[in-house]
Amino acid sequence: MRILGIDPGLAIVGFGFVDKNGSKLTPVQYGCIQTEAHTPEAERLSHVYDGMIQLIDRYKPDAVAMEKLYFSRNVTTALPVAQARGVLVLAAVQRGLPLSEYTPMQVKQAIVGYGKAEKKQVQEMVRMFLKLSQIPKPDDVADALAVAVCHAHSYTLNSKINEVLGR
Amino acid sequence: MRILGIDPGLAIVGFGFVDKNGSKLTPVQYGCIQTEAHTPEAERLSHVYDGMIQLIDRYKPDAVAMEKLYFSRNVTTALPVAQARGVLVLAAVQRGLPLSEYTPMQVKQAIVGYGKAEKKQVQEMVRMFLKLSQIPKPDDVADALAVAVCHAHSYTLNSKINEVLGR
Repeated sequence: MRILGIDPGLAIVGFGFVDKNGSKLTPVQYGCIQTEAHTPEAERLSHVYDGMIQLIDRYKPDAVAMEKLYFSRNVTTALPVAQARGVLVLAAVQRGLPLSEYTPMQVKQAIVGYGKAEKKQVQEMVRMFLKLSQIPKPDDVADALAVAVCHAHSYTLNSKINEVLGR
Repeated sequence: MRILGIDPGLAIVGFGFVDKNGSKLTPVQYGCIQTEAHTPEAERLSHVYDGMIQLIDRYKPDAVAMEKLYFSRNVTTALPVAQARGVLVLAAVQRGLPLSEYTPMQVKQAIVGYGKAEKKQVQEMVRMFLKLSQIPKPDDVADALAVAVCHAHSYTLNSKINEVLGR
């Protein structure tokens, strides 16, 4: 199965397509959609949506994984990200893709085995799982790959639980 | 010109189409798009987007007016609204409609002439401007009509300024 991990944003949307065959994970494509700071917000949202639709149509994932939104501090920066996340969720649902959401703590837990792991540790583990020569830049891309890997691991775990329970 | 006023939300999206001929304002259609609380967020966002696209295609507005988002208090309620707002902005831009945004204070100023007016006063003035027998319910619908009327007034004012300045 092919998993699309997304790190939502208005200025930068990180994405990572990861193929999962059994326990083997292979990165297919990763990068980011960027929008210009001085263009109207409506155009930026449209650019984010169009970019994601193009990526989905090109790389045909089977599932989408995204971080859950939650901001304890700055609402001003949270709102544009939430709006962008809205159009990204829309792109996924319009293409009929199941969407799974994970908190940052769940992502860390799934990758490092410890919910309060450092960002650097998470990135290094993702790099190893995907056999990349270096940690992808910017952080948004690494974060998108991390949530894709998190979904791959959770998916394996859930399948095993269902197997044991005979579902 | 026909103005579409929108009050964004995930559970309820208020909308109001208002025709402006000179200084005369006529309500064309108003109401709300509602989504079920216990359905997945992705489906709700999709429902909001589809509903708005259908309304735009049916009533063919020339411009869209929406309240600017800003939440000083509760981020938890703000984020779903912001996500819904994202897909509503997308619907407008995909249909090539110019989007104008107003703060709640600008709406009050444009309608009551006083930026700190009570909600009730705003609703009553909107009712009078649109010659409605009663204030539309729920508040989301009244708010959508208010931002449409605000845009109509701002539009008239801007046209007059441009006229005076010979633009």
